[in-house]
Amino acid sequence: MYTLYIANKNYSSWSLRPWVLMQEAGIPFEERLLPFGDEAAWAPFRALTPAGKVPALVDEGRVIWDSLAIVEYLAERHPGVWPRDAEARAFARSAAAEMHAGFTVLRSFCSMNVGIRVRLRETPPALLRDVGRISALWTEGLTRFGGPYLAGDTFTAVDAFFAPVVFRVQTYGLALGDAAAAYTTRMLDRPSMRLWYTQGLAETLRDESHDAECRTVGEWTADLRAI
Amino acid sequence: MYTLYIANKNYSSWSLRPWVLMQEAGIPFEERLLPFGDEAAWAPFRALTPAGKVPALVDEGRVIWDSLAIVEYLAERHPGVWPRDAEARAFARSAAAEMHAGFTVLRSFCSMNVGIRVRLRETPPALLRDVGRISALWTEGLTRFGGPYLAGDTFTAVDAFFAPVVFRVQTYGLALGDAAAAYTTRMLDRPSMRLWYTQGLAETLRDESHDAECRTVGEWTADLRAI
Repeated sequence: MYTLYIANKNYSSWSLRPWVLMQEAGIPFEERLLPFGDEAAWAPFRALTPAGKVPALVDEGRVIWDSLAIVEYLAERHPGVWPRDAEARAFARSAAAEMHAGFTVLRSFCSMNVGIRVRLRETPPALLRDVGRISALWTEGLTRFGGPYLAGDTFTAVDAFFAPVVFRVQTYGLALGDAAAAYTTRMLDRPSMRLWYTQGLAETLRDESHDAECRTVGEWTADLRAI
Repeated sequence: MYTLYIANKNYSSWSLRPWVLMQEAGIPFEERLLPFGDEAAWAPFRALTPAGKVPALVDEGRVIWDSLAIVEYLAERHPGVWPRDAEARAFARSAAAEMHAGFTVLRSFCSMNVGIRVRLRETPPALLRDVGRISALWTEGLTRFGGPYLAGDTFTAVDAFFAPVVFRVQTYGLALGDAAAAYTTRMLDRPSMRLWYTQGLAETLRDESHDAECRTVGEWTADLRAI
């Protein structure tokens, strides 16, 4: 049985990726949630993996400590993690890797916070460039491989890699092209995504540094989280 | 035949990774070097790949546009890209992915510039943390898998992923633990690394924005590049 270490569902974009992939692929795992700021919970985890970052997957004592490495580890052992078609797989891996190392402005300006809604005070050109690239990339995948997912007719790791962006689009009301906007709606309707969202809303912990970031960039129009 | 698009060897850390891996694995490829700042050279490349970033691998019209996606694409088709042992492979993928998405302070403060030597004016704590983590991670791999490479007795993709750090250690005189320092020396002695280095020194193009970054952080004690 796999153990997947994650952090708060409301905030932890990196954690969401392998979690939603394993849900969609039907790979059983035990979940361990380490709340941000709760140092007592994190100490034994840091002993397990020197990088000290979630997500981390533990498989019979073996620790895999990065979201993309987890995906490739699972892909060696379970079908359906990446698309079967080589062309779609090359696209999916390139797009997921672009997300893994890039979109730094989108990631820092619109940090994931699934339970709130924010009206941005401004949309800097660098943010618009990142959002435009997301829209173009999603549209390319949906068009080339026929949808409804980014690399064809099944949910694969590339969808998991962009899942946090889907929540950001909802939180910050980011404007996408029609095909990309429709994909966002489809993703938000997935049972796996709804489960993460519901559990995120139910969390009562607030991480002040994350919330402060979201207050810096805009006005909160709703806070749907549990009191 | 593969075509690998790269940028200047003196500066382009991302380009070095698949280039040195393909050299070491004996995978033939045609190299296309797009010099930074030469827009005429980049225009057709941007038409080929909307992300517009090097490195990109083209295989019979199929474009793979990120360094880590290129590695996985090659791993499906050629032996030896990742370690054969599952334990070593899990480590190698985790470490390479950590490099792919992380070490942002090291990357921005000590940008790759293989032909110069710089005495840093200061070493901020965040830089020391990144360098310390590099040293610990390399030492862990060398110890667990017996060396002389990071995941065992052959050069694999994880070594390729840290190859730009090896040049940074040389350029900025970064202090590592003994095992990690010895690994740096071994890597600099590899024929593949020496070939990249020699070709980087021979380049006459200067990218002022890259050079200016290196002037901001310290004093140049040597410039070994061609006039």
